[in-house]
Amino acid sequence: MVEAVSVQHDQKQAVAAELYRALAAGDRKRLDEILDPAFEGRTTDGLPLGLGGTYAGADTMRRKFWGQIARSYDARAEPAEYRHLDDGQLLVTGRYVGEARQGGGKLDAEFFHLLSFDEDRITGLVQLTDSARWTDALGARRDLSTVDFRVADGLAEIRLDRPHVRNAFDQAMADDLYEIAQRLAADPEVRAVLITGNGPALTVGGDIAVFADNAGAGLPGTLRRMISPYHEALRILSGLDAPIVCAAHGAVAGGGLGLLYCADIVLAAEGTKFASGFAALGLSGDGGNSWFLPRLLGPRRAAEFYLEQRVLDAHEAVEWGLVTRVLPAGELAEGALSTARRLAVGPTRAHGEIRRLLRESWSATLAEQLTAEADAIARTARTSDASTAVAAFIDKHKPTFQGR
Amino acid sequence: MVEAVSVQHDQKQAVAAELYRALAAGDRKRLDEILDPAFEGRTTDGLPLGLGGTYAGADTMRRKFWGQIARSYDARAEPAEYRHLDDGQLLVTGRYVGEARQGGGKLDAEFFHLLSFDEDRITGLVQLTDSARWTDALGARRDLSTVDFRVADGLAEIRLDRPHVRNAFDQAMADDLYEIAQRLAADPEVRAVLITGNGPALTVGGDIAVFADNAGAGLPGTLRRMISPYHEALRILSGLDAPIVCAAHGAVAGGGLGLLYCADIVLAAEGTKFASGFAALGLSGDGGNSWFLPRLLGPRRAAEFYLEQRVLDAHEAVEWGLVTRVLPAGELAEGALSTARRLAVGPTRAHGEIRRLLRESWSATLAEQLTAEADAIARTARTSDASTAVAAFIDKHKPTFQGR
Amino acid sequence: MVEAVSVQHDQKQAVAAELYRALAAGDRKRLDEILDPAFEGRTTDGLPLGLGGTYAGADTMRRKFWGQIARSYDARAEPAEYRHLDDGQLLVTGRYVGEARQGGGKLDAEFFHLLSFDEDRITGLVQLTDSARWTDALGARRDLSTVDFRVADGLAEIRLDRPHVRNAFDQAMADDLYEIAQRLAADPEVRAVLITGNGPALTVGGDIAVFADNAGAGLPGTLRRMISPYHEALRILSGLDAPIVCAAHGAVAGGGLGLLYCADIVLAAEGTKFASGFAALGLSGDGGNSWFLPRLLGPRRAAEFYLEQRVLDAHEAVEWGLVTRVLPAGELAEGALSTARRLAVGPTRAHGEIRRLLRESWSATLAEQLTAEADAIARTARTSDASTAVAAFIDKHKPTFQGR
Repeated sequence: MVEAVSVQHDQKQAVAAELYRALAAGDRKRLDEILDPAFEGRTTDGLPLGLGGTYAGADTMRRKFWGQIARSYDARAEPAEYRHLDDGQLLVTGRYVGEARQGGGKLDAEFFHLLSFDEDRITGLVQLTDSARWTDALGARRDLSTVDFRVADGLAEIRLDRPHVRNAFDQAMADDLYEIAQRLAADPEVRAVLITGNGPALTVGGDIAVFADNAGAGLPGTLRRMISPYHEALRILSGLDAPIVCAAHGAVAGGGLGLLYCADIVLAAEGTKFASGFAALGLSGDGGNSWFLPRLLGPRRAAEFYLEQRVLDAHEAVEWGLVTRVLPAGELAEGALSTARRLAVGPTRAHGEIRRLLRESWSATLAEQLTAEADAIARTARTSDASTAVAAFIDKHKPTFQGR
Repeated sequence: MVEAVSVQHDQKQAVAAELYRALAAGDRKRLDEILDPAFEGRTTDGLPLGLGGTYAGADTMRRKFWGQIARSYDARAEPAEYRHLDDGQLLVTGRYVGEARQGGGKLDAEFFHLLSFDEDRITGLVQLTDSARWTDALGARRDLSTVDFRVADGLAEIRLDRPHVRNAFDQAMADDLYEIAQRLAADPEVRAVLITGNGPALTVGGDIAVFADNAGAGLPGTLRRMISPYHEALRILSGLDAPIVCAAHGAVAGGGLGLLYCADIVLAAEGTKFASGFAALGLSGDGGNSWFLPRLLGPRRAAEFYLEQRVLDAHEAVEWGLVTRVLPAGELAEGALSTARRLAVGPTRAHGEIRRLLRESWSATLAEQLTAEADAIARTARTSDASTAVAAFIDKHKPTFQGR
Repeated sequence: MVEAVSVQHDQKQAVAAELYRALAAGDRKRLDEILDPAFEGRTTDGLPLGLGGTYAGADTMRRKFWGQIARSYDARAEPAEYRHLDDGQLLVTGRYVGEARQGGGKLDAEFFHLLSFDEDRITGLVQLTDSARWTDALGARRDLSTVDFRVADGLAEIRLDRPHVRNAFDQAMADDLYEIAQRLAADPEVRAVLITGNGPALTVGGDIAVFADNAGAGLPGTLRRMISPYHEALRILSGLDAPIVCAAHGAVAGGGLGLLYCADIVLAAEGTKFASGFAALGLSGDGGNSWFLPRLLGPRRAAEFYLEQRVLDAHEAVEWGLVTRVLPAGELAEGALSTARRLAVGPTRAHGEIRRLLRESWSATLAEQLTAEADAIARTARTSDASTAVAAFIDKHKPTFQGR
């Protein structure tokens, strides 16, 4: 009997060792053999890039968790010790070592893995690791060359700065925005974000001169390399607690519309033009256009804007729900700044919950969203901003929010 | 061989008994051991609170089915007899006994559970129980103190009645609305619902005096206690067959906007103001605001209304899709009543299917929704209202609908 | 040891044979026993009716794959040879034989099935078959009697042709549209589609005289028979690469609104009326109304249009997002034709990706859609249309798109 248990122990440990080998080798076939299809992974909540959470199914774990890690880190899990628990689970301790692919920040973080088995397959993995180390590895700072970025008094300003090409996107600008998004995500002091552009236009989208230099077989790769960090930047910006204000002027086109989409409030100068433009280049588009246009404009107008490539002026853009309001060109900078400043002295945690609820609403049933609202309001009710505001309301004076 | 089968039988019965013990004890750890992760539960269709249906995964069953039961009932499943079926399944019969948490109505309902096994884990449970007993237990009537409620000629009227505080929500009003929603869900004679408010405003949302009395550490709990029955009321009202008309006047704010959201048709008196208001209190909000605002207003205007706290007048509310139409203040009561009466003499079953299709549309792909439409139209084609209406159309006269 | 393996082999082969028997017999109970609940099926990508893809769960496979096949084909899988693979999988080769239910086109297609097992249940099936044979079987051409259809210069024209009943739908028209949709899906030369109606109106929806002839117990079946091919036609049209233009005149009502919904650009003649009309017949509706109305109009106006049965004129339809633009009645035909011709000389593959992204957007989270956009733009970047267009942009001349 003792022997039988020992044989089982050896077998589990062998399977676990295989897991780490297969992960390091990217051996998908072996992973499929080792992991039960009904596998469930639970990963450390605080992990960056939205990696913390629950993954149902071996496939999901592989694609969404390990796949995402492999895209962002060149790292491996090195198991050090295996301990067998009474209940048949295996506890593996060790370290993750490697570096972030962007910026090359070093990663060295301890882990605990609690593995569950069914026969000789792994059915579950509960992961605990020091998520701050993972965030730090990403945060190795990159010098910005195409975007001006500053934070003062809780307000972050992002200013696109390739005015000679009307702030068209090249690889550096995509990388800079990704870098900035990561800094913002890591900075709890930021309470509002303002996005503007230097020169005659906010942005005309992808720099077609770059596309032309890489035409033919190279074009898909060129686009993917630019779009990956840009999309990741948009995703991170959309997930900030801090509300985002965008000041549009001149023209906003193509993937550059994504900067409008990740903003909550969009102010446009009189005379600004908005255009999709992709179909004229035989391309399908990026920047979240296909996620936001149907929701902002409705499917009918989204098709007109996207397929017929109708160009909107600033007033049409307001009427269609793309832009919040129009300002005279001479008042745009001041108007956008004062709007952002107003939001920067607001209840930042409540703003964050509201932004998240509005964004995640689209994937939720009414019943699920009602539950999410109850959870979120309970969290905000615990903030000192809420206590201050309730007391101020009763005393009939205006509250001063601290953003916590 | 006979012995082997008998051992297997004993083992299954033991696991089943453990299931009932673990459920009664709320022993989540034990449940996780007993249930296969790929567990599937099928529960009796007619169960109240949307409990009837299919639950994929042990986790889903635990959270969405047993968890919801535990929130609404203080009850346990008492197994009486175990029978082993040829195909390896186990049939357990017994009774659910206990009471509803709200109102304390007694529950005593027979059950059949058909359990499937894989090794010594439970992989499936098919439940049959007398769902009417479950509904009756919830229905133990609560006296209403803050809302006036009456049903006549197929029309139910819900009138908020805390005029001195402009129908601000306190715990009693949330509980009253939940009670009313349950009565409506149980009353097949109701063919339309009219929601109005007594006094100067429909409702200004949560009563901030109540929040102030429970400020600090108590606020999250106070909010949760009020929001739980209110959200459940909104969910149930949204799921009724009977169309809902809401008459808005004075002001509608905060969580009180939920009454507009669960209505199909919203009439507003000239001069009515609509506001979110949550951020001013440092709170994220409730009442379905985050589910409905992006869908009704689009994300751009939802952000302006919710984050910038723009106040809308009645005409803006129509233009933005929050309200159906504006009436002079003096004509609101009569206009809303006649609108509701018109709907109350309509084809109630078809109305119910339409309301459900429109609401569930958001979670469906086009292909799924086309299938749902085909199923729903086939159901309505079986109603006597449809037969009557088709015949009346051919005869060129107006049909009289019976609501069935 | 050799013997043990051989016993295992016999057992797997027996289970596989049972699978084919149970599928042929439609023996759902047996299928449930044979298939692991966590079963995963991967089917040949090119299969018609959207059948190619991955199916997670035995239930999903049964309902969405085998069920859909059974609805569209009267066919069976006839296994010929079983081969045991080193890794424990079983490779079955054989033929699918039978015919399409619509049109009776013969099906005779080879298959490879790679079956995986866990104990004595099947946990996976990877299918490879010649999908063109499946498409051909469906494509056995049906003569069109109620719709005029022609393709010239990459432009397909669909003209409803029951003018004496204002193009009301009967069974033949539903079947004709399904036939046309299949032809379009199979024709890579089509680069735009134009939908019009002969006579005084585009279409008034279902022919109520047909309903009356089949009133009472027969009505659900009559509706289902008409709606099935019509919905399938709408689904297929929505999935084409080619953009769709619809020219509305006179009236568009009931399920006939589906023709507007599957179109990208809708032009309406002055004076056109739009109505839901279902509730007047005690029916819940079809044609995708419940999927498109909330998305196009927002929930508030969708309820007014659907439940209160408000009739919209052409200008209101534009304002509400149902229609793209209004033309004087005398200019509709020419305007719609030139709009469709403009799209027919566009980048058809990019148009297809854009149409798919906009449609599937509703089921995706922002993160998922950003990934889908990156994948799609990389695919379009490989087209010769994109290469041509980028070069033309740099040369400042207008590109000529070939649609590939």
